[in-house]
Amino acid sequence: MKKITILGSTGSIGKQTLEVIKDLEEIEVLALTANSSVDLLAEQINVFKPKYAVLMNASLINELKYKLNDKKTKILAGLKGLIEVATLDEIDLVVNAVVGAVGVKPTLEAIRAGKDIALANKETLVTAGSIVMREAKENNVKILPVDSEHNAIFQALQGEDENMVKKIILTASGGPFRTFSKNKLTNVTVKEALNHPNWDMGGKITIDSATLMNKGLEVIEAKWLFDLDYDQVDVVVHPQSIIHSLVEYEDHSILAELGLPDMKIPIQYALTYPRRKPNNLESLDLAKIGQLTFEEPKYDLFPCLKYAYQAGEIGGTMPAVLNAANEIAVNKFLKNKIKFVDIPKIIKRVMSAHQVVDNPILEDILEADVWARKQAEKEGEKVCY
Amino acid sequence: MKKITILGSTGSIGKQTLEVIKDLEEIEVLALTANSSVDLLAEQINVFKPKYAVLMNASLINELKYKLNDKKTKILAGLKGLIEVATLDEIDLVVNAVVGAVGVKPTLEAIRAGKDIALANKETLVTAGSIVMREAKENNVKILPVDSEHNAIFQALQGEDENMVKKIILTASGGPFRTFSKNKLTNVTVKEALNHPNWDMGGKITIDSATLMNKGLEVIEAKWLFDLDYDQVDVVVHPQSIIHSLVEYEDHSILAELGLPDMKIPIQYALTYPRRKPNNLESLDLAKIGQLTFEEPKYDLFPCLKYAYQAGEIGGTMPAVLNAANEIAVNKFLKNKIKFVDIPKIIKRVMSAHQVVDNPILEDILEADVWARKQAEKEGEKVCY
Repeated sequence: MKKITILGSTGSIGKQTLEVIKDLEEIEVLALTANSSVDLLAEQINVFKPKYAVLMNASLINELKYKLNDKKTKILAGLKGLIEVATLDEIDLVVNAVVGAVGVKPTLEAIRAGKDIALANKETLVTAGSIVMREAKENNVKILPVDSEHNAIFQALQGEDENMVKKIILTASGGPFRTFSKNKLTNVTVKEALNHPNWDMGGKITIDSATLMNKGLEVIEAKWLFDLDYDQVDVVVHPQSIIHSLVEYEDHSILAELGLPDMKIPIQYALTYPRRKPNNLESLDLAKIGQLTFEEPKYDLFPCLKYAYQAGEIGGTMPAVLNAANEIAVNKFLKNKIKFVDIPKIIKRVMSAHQVVDNPILEDILEADVWARKQAEKEGEKVCY
Repeated sequence: MKKITILGSTGSIGKQTLEVIKDLEEIEVLALTANSSVDLLAEQINVFKPKYAVLMNASLINELKYKLNDKKTKILAGLKGLIEVATLDEIDLVVNAVVGAVGVKPTLEAIRAGKDIALANKETLVTAGSIVMREAKENNVKILPVDSEHNAIFQALQGEDENMVKKIILTASGGPFRTFSKNKLTNVTVKEALNHPNWDMGGKITIDSATLMNKGLEVIEAKWLFDLDYDQVDVVVHPQSIIHSLVEYEDHSILAELGLPDMKIPIQYALTYPRRKPNNLESLDLAKIGQLTFEEPKYDLFPCLKYAYQAGEIGGTMPAVLNAANEIAVNKFLKNKIKFVDIPKIIKRVMSAHQVVDNPILEDILEADVWARKQAEKEGEKVCY
């Protein structure tokens, strides 16, 4: 029996993780956490009966307790609670499905406590990749990527010599505006941007897919996860999202993982690793799909991807600044305060204004994150319509 | 230093194997063999200076010796010579690139002598798969597939639990007549049939690609190589030959090997296994390729594929009969003695007339092979135009 904590169980990945666990016999859920989704967390507690549950928003704890069928689950609050359940002696694996920079600290603490990490939280590696991977190595901890792209790479690396990796190729759907002109792009609505062609995901990540920032963040994650240089991480636009990513080896063989776009496949792989387990998901039928297409990403139309490569190459605190500025900008777009094309503008300005700290410790990163949010707010005011 | 024997060094795979070896530092060629291509074998001996060389056609030995720069290479003749160089104490690996049923016996003897086999000879597994794989297991010998499809499957299985394989999917180019109507197919010429869209191969295998018999034989090979049931071996037509084949696991993840259609990639993989080695071949650029397409094979237009599944399911001596009848029929087509669409007709009639021997020993198989050739000749006479 593998005992796990799920950080962020009420988000898109958290919910799907619990659905996967329902059909697996070998996983026991010891702790669930949520930000403020009291109703759903209560429902999950009533079904999975974890020993612990955490609400980030402490003011909602009484409301949560009221909704529980029994009082057997210990309820904790805030980041302290998150860290407590991420480092429990009894657990083997922490699923980090938290959204945002709040995911970094519990991940690091879990790594220091020797827990393997099934990682869906992008910010952990984007902002603190060097620290996280160093600590993971020192503590002999496995980082199991949940993201379909990184999970595909991880699968394609099994049984292989990592020194023979020539490069990896992340596939990108290209988002809903892949075929738009520059002109057409200036007037897209939030509703259009939220309409992702293949994957059913949360709002922030769906906008990130539309700007290609999602792929940019994945490039930075991949650099750290697989210990590569940035020129070893390529992106190809593949609108059908059937090939989830590829690894090219030095002998020019390419290994790829494919499947229908269903997050349950990579989630289950991370949960049952190093073994696979049968499930009832649908098989990919290539003849039915008919064709897979590929094209170069349009860096001019979607500069966020370019900025992500640049932030990664600059390194230090810059990726954290890229990420924080993007979070604020996307939030402003979702609230109709800026246009879609303002997102990269804000990010670029914030990056330009940032004084990079090289070889940062976690505090430097968190500080840069706070600074970048404020700066992005300011830049956001300027472009207000 | 890995010391190897190449059986069939003057054929398409044999020549490419030597080209690959030229660029690898770790392989020493100890023996080369040819059927009757004296000029090319002499050239190869003069370059690679093997300890041994074999000519199947003993009457050409003096001609061969006359063409050699020095007399250091020991020249042997016939099947006896083939077996001798396949079982030399000093060698680690036998590359079996012989065309036809003559490849079976040396493979079995090499296996019994504990040599790993890089297998390009289809007949070995098609006709004697049960015997060969049992002996390989007993002698702890690795069978390394050279064929791009099986090599792709083999690569996609590295580091995986074979019990978790749901099915494998062999890709087929569909050949030059993929889009032809039944009517149009009746009048195709030898020249048209020899015009393979992607791979540069020998004549017999190119015709087999056009009839889809090549894929049928690969289905039977795959069954034995990877210890699968026939309903675990699927075929999908993929005209671009970029995805070389795929493995679907029980969790619905699919791993595939991709690359430009260049036999040097799988040849090198088999030679350097379990390691990969850098080379100077071309990288696959998916954006440049643009699209990959897939469709169901047309069993009605290309019944050879259906007959291969049937022969495999029947088992015993039937796959050997399928293979032998096909060899005769293809030969007759290449000589303009029968039409393209007569190839499956002859095979079907020979299969219908065969009395299957279950659990055959090698002698039963060789006997069935001889019988089927005679029978196919007879059937071929009947359909003469």
